[in-house]
Amino acid sequence: MKIENIQLFYLSMPEILDEADGSQDALIVKVEAGGLVGWGECEASPLTSIANFICPKSHSAANPIRDSILGKNLNNLDDIKKIIYTVKHRSLMIAQTPHTFSGIEVALLDLLAKKENCPIYSLLGMKKTNPKIAYASVLFGKTPQDTFNITKKLKQNNFKAIKLGWENFGLDLKNDQDHLVAARDAIGNELELMIDVGAIWGTNLEDAEKRLEIFQNAKITWLEEPFFSDAFYEYSELYKKTNLPLAGGESCHSIESAKNMIRFGKVKFIQIDAGIAGGILAGKEICDFAESHDVQYVNHTFTSHLQLSSSLQPYASSNKSKFSEFPQQLKSLAWDLTENHISMDQNGYINIPEGVGHGMKINQSALDQYNVDVEIFVNKKKIF
Amino acid sequence: MKIENIQLFYLSMPEILDEADGSQDALIVKVEAGGLVGWGECEASPLTSIANFICPKSHSAANPIRDSILGKNLNNLDDIKKIIYTVKHRSLMIAQTPHTFSGIEVALLDLLAKKENCPIYSLLGMKKTNPKIAYASVLFGKTPQDTFNITKKLKQNNFKAIKLGWENFGLDLKNDQDHLVAARDAIGNELELMIDVGAIWGTNLEDAEKRLEIFQNAKITWLEEPFFSDAFYEYSELYKKTNLPLAGGESCHSIESAKNMIRFGKVKFIQIDAGIAGGILAGKEICDFAESHDVQYVNHTFTSHLQLSSSLQPYASSNKSKFSEFPQQLKSLAWDLTENHISMDQNGYINIPEGVGHGMKINQSALDQYNVDVEIFVNKKKIF
Repeated sequence: MKIENIQLFYLSMPEILDEADGSQDALIVKVEAGGLVGWGECEASPLTSIANFICPKSHSAANPIRDSILGKNLNNLDDIKKIIYTVKHRSLMIAQTPHTFSGIEVALLDLLAKKENCPIYSLLGMKKTNPKIAYASVLFGKTPQDTFNITKKLKQNNFKAIKLGWENFGLDLKNDQDHLVAARDAIGNELELMIDVGAIWGTNLEDAEKRLEIFQNAKITWLEEPFFSDAFYEYSELYKKTNLPLAGGESCHSIESAKNMIRFGKVKFIQIDAGIAGGILAGKEICDFAESHDVQYVNHTFTSHLQLSSSLQPYASSNKSKFSEFPQQLKSLAWDLTENHISMDQNGYINIPEGVGHGMKINQSALDQYNVDVEIFVNKKKIF
Repeated sequence: MKIENIQLFYLSMPEILDEADGSQDALIVKVEAGGLVGWGECEASPLTSIANFICPKSHSAANPIRDSILGKNLNNLDDIKKIIYTVKHRSLMIAQTPHTFSGIEVALLDLLAKKENCPIYSLLGMKKTNPKIAYASVLFGKTPQDTFNITKKLKQNNFKAIKLGWENFGLDLKNDQDHLVAARDAIGNELELMIDVGAIWGTNLEDAEKRLEIFQNAKITWLEEPFFSDAFYEYSELYKKTNLPLAGGESCHSIESAKNMIRFGKVKFIQIDAGIAGGILAGKEICDFAESHDVQYVNHTFTSHLQLSSSLQPYASSNKSKFSEFPQQLKSLAWDLTENHISMDQNGYINIPEGVGHGMKINQSALDQYNVDVEIFVNKKKIF
């Protein structure tokens, strides 16, 4: 079959708040071929990615992504790999390309899996799935007491692992300590506690080292994104000096950049978003590489359950990579996008969906309800 | 003074050819403050970068770039550094950001230099300039005979260094050899010869190693971009195995990524585009780091002389970094954009412009002649 149509849907909450919550808008991809439909989701600025999809060509390595996909064959995995190769080479010099293409790749795999009537992970050669320990991914509270209450509640809801992130953490040592103490107090010693600082320290090693003791006292499982995502030297120095297990990778835009985080950044957990890194096949290659280097693969997901399922596929069958990010504060858009959802069992585990494709059913009415209308004209001609 | 206005001008040739020539379109930045005007140029997909500039906010780390700049103070270098920091943090999760911001940073420096009535390199603390050996940057011919003719002509025109790139080089060993032999035959042994293969081998070390002998026979000064820009492991392995001096960096989107190419990719020449890497201040920091690691800094420029002058500023005074890319096959757009041009002397050297700012005077009529009209509507409201 041939790829007949690709549609991008820009969805948004009525108001976008100035907070780190990535579920406030979405760019959804619908691909059609041979009477079947595949769905995927891109992570990051929808308008920028739409422009990347349909922009006028600049030169032979800066093409609109659409031109490398529409009309191409889609009969097997090799066809998808050919498209991946073409997009990479033909749109190499547009930095936004991986953001834009990732959701399309997921939609292509979803469509192919529907043709084969199997889950995506089966297409990748996996026979069974292994449940993952769901970690609740939430923002720190505004005060230590808020943080205490948030984490306490999550423990009561059966979570075995909790990740706290952002909301001004990392700027004041005493405040940071109070939040960490509050969190550990609330959840006791058995639960895993992870901290995400969102690159707050840029390339400043010292700011990170100052907090070593409070991290050790809080017995954190990992420290996530202490530095800019490509500050591999600083990552490796921090690890060398402190032995604190580091996590990162959500900004990896390619297989190579993830391998660099592992090889040179010395992370022990590589966190890959299927909507950013190039898609599910990129994730699978990164997972194989990570596990052969004694590094755990973890999904990065701060959006819908469509994205959550997509990001679980690359390591669906792994028993080495144990954790899954399970976002807990989704805006209604991200929740409403799918008719079905992934739920956690009483032991704190989630299962990879067993349905065809990624197993998530798109709620068509959400596409209308949250729709953002975009029109782009170039020299008075409407190109989107 | 405060930044009062930022305008983006999308320019294009009437027809964009499917060739590697990056001078076929352009995104020009005009910044106004205190009655002064600064100009800069962004490299890469204009429409995608325009969208990045004005896109609706997605979350606290995915903001339109404009919001971090308009209305801000611009009185000294620290003000520009503050803007750089804000843009990086507030637009971290939009991969296109460095492409879009780089041209703005150049325009801000141009404007500040005009306020101080000095060249940009003076703002960076440099007292004098050192001329650079201009290398002609051209595409391989379609046939070895074409390559012979092209390089012969360049030698006759006083060039002391020539870089040949792309146009199907790297796909067929015999063909590659014929082109290299033709080039060296044409120019004799005294001229420097560089080869740019534009990431043709992806991550395939073997394809690169196969050509070691023909590179050695052709006595090339460097091999540029053998692999994807973030394939540091493959870069370093190739260098370790062959000792061939490698060059790369045009896709570096940050100071850190350039440092990674040096630290982990083991390049001997780091090639930075002021319109991609984050601007001139980023270039200066990369240059200092490179030279302290026995690596030469080189501009990457395949567009206008506005961009050429901007990319020369970070190493204007250096005597360790000797070469300058001097594009020779510019489309009329890139040539017409400036009223004045940088020229090479009879010994094959170019001087850094001594005028105020980057020293290049924008040709207003070119902005009209090559203008691409873009209109973007979000929910029926015109946002660009």
